Amino acid sequence: MEILSENRSHGGRQLVVKHASAATGTKMTFSIFLPPQAESGPCPVVWYLSGLTCSHANVTEKGEYRAACAEHGLIFVAPDTSPRGEEVPDGEGYDFGKGAGFYVDATQAPWSQHFHMWTYVTQELPALIAAEYPVDMGRQAITGHSMGGHGALTVALRHPDRFRSVSAFAPIVAPSQVPWGQKALGGYLGNDRAAWRKHDAVALIEDGARVPELLVDVGTADNFLEQELRPALLERACADAGIALTLNRREGYDHSYYFISTFMADHLAWHAERLRA
Amino acid sequence: MEILSENRSHGGRQLVVKHASAATGTKMTFSIFLPPQAESGPCPVVWYLSGLTCSHANVTEKGEYRAACAEHGLIFVAPDTSPRGEEVPDGEGYDFGKGAGFYVDATQAPWSQHFHMWTYVTQELPALIAAEYPVDMGRQAITGHSMGGHGALTVALRHPDRFRSVSAFAPIVAPSQVPWGQKALGGYLGNDRAAWRKHDAVALIEDGARVPELLVDVGTADNFLEQELRPALLERACADAGIALTLNRREGYDHSYYFISTFMADHLAWHAERLRA
Repeated sequence: MEILSENRSHGGRQLVVKHASAATGTKMTFSIFLPPQAESGPCPVVWYLSGLTCSHANVTEKGEYRAACAEHGLIFVAPDTSPRGEEVPDGEGYDFGKGAGFYVDATQAPWSQHFHMWTYVTQELPALIAAEYPVDMGRQAITGHSMGGHGALTVALRHPDRFRSVSAFAPIVAPSQVPWGQKALGGYLGNDRAAWRKHDAVALIEDGARVPELLVDVGTADNFLEQELRPALLERACADAGIALTLNRREGYDHSYYFISTFMADHLAWHAERLRA
Repeated sequence: MEILSENRSHGGRQLVVKHASAATGTKMTFSIFLPPQAESGPCPVVWYLSGLTCSHANVTEKGEYRAACAEHGLIFVAPDTSPRGEEVPDGEGYDFGKGAGFYVDATQAPWSQHFHMWTYVTQELPALIAAEYPVDMGRQAITGHSMGGHGALTVALRHPDRFRSVSAFAPIVAPSQVPWGQKALGGYLGNDRAAWRKHDAVALIEDGARVPELLVDVGTADNFLEQELRPALLERACADAGIALTLNRREGYDHSYYFISTFMADHLAWHAERLRA
């Protein structure tokens, strides 16, 4: 583990850390915010999975989460979105390959060598965080943006006992049914669509996966709303499954961090309430 | 005027605007946040002057000011720190030339052709903002960071009737006495140190300029504290002049936006109180 930077902020410590990952076979970088409360004992943790083209840095710089984390005593961890480095193959376009790991373990060459983001965010990184930082692993929440909203939903639906709460900002809710998801799942997992269902929130719910409730915010001026995000598909799946979905359609907001940062404090307060319970 | 971007955020509108500047003879870019209250009438304005190497973008992305501006109904304007473009000469190092205008009107060739940031931030941009946006120009406040803290202090000290309040984050308080300032003031204004005094907050106070009070935050882990910022010089000048200085030395904080964003809401609340009065 190499600490790339450490800055005092909002009474706590914002770290950026690089480490060798067995899951991806590369170095991986994440950020972690330790609130002031972490000086005196374990704190609950919120995982934040980022969207296409992003690294840990976008939310760390623009997410405006530290004030709320300091208020509620939350540790906030932001992993990268893919393996990086010269040895890692890249895809065509911003939506496949580096910066676009889609939180799956690729089975298709050449991606299957390094693109193991599912194992990284569900196993390796949690183990490392639990070992190195004062985290109460009995109190975990997860959220994310866009591709990372997809990641948060699928990770939570497949680990219902691990997370006390799950939310998302402008998530891709049904990747099997939209261009970004079809490109990524097809590329990483191949053409057998049965394998895609474990990485598709709507399909997981249709197949019986459950969480008690979901909080989702999406902007009405989001350019990707109709073609890639399709929140109505999640609305229908949750209604059919009896999952209490709070879906906030935010008038005039777009897909950017100007949107995310606006509602970050609301999401963190919502998670904090459930993490305290 | 060309709107480069517009994003809804925290209930208001974050704009980035490019315009032709007569003061600098170049295109200039600034950002302006219009809080929700600006939809229904004029709002007070807070000017934010940025530090070395920065443009409007740093504070716009990392400053965490929008939540507080939306709460208090403040318009927030962030100019660039120098003229830009191929026609603009650049200096040696990050601390002179582009990104380092130091909020003076240069008198020395070749800088005197474009580096007129004093006129730009004190005359041209305020006139443009007053004409184009719903600003109550009777209620203005100013703040800034590092070189921009120097700018905020000197602009306010020389316009005591214009600003109801002035604060700064890690300001250069006495540029005539520190390396950054000596390089910049010498380069832009020449070797006649008498001309420097109008661009040196401590010298201005010594020469009789007055504001009723000042709010300054600085981090104890700021790498530039002892050599470039020297807040004790401001402390002494204010004590001698009867200016009520609140100087907060923040334990463990550095020079970065992790520091600024931590105390931004405090500064904006302090300004809002004085702008409401």
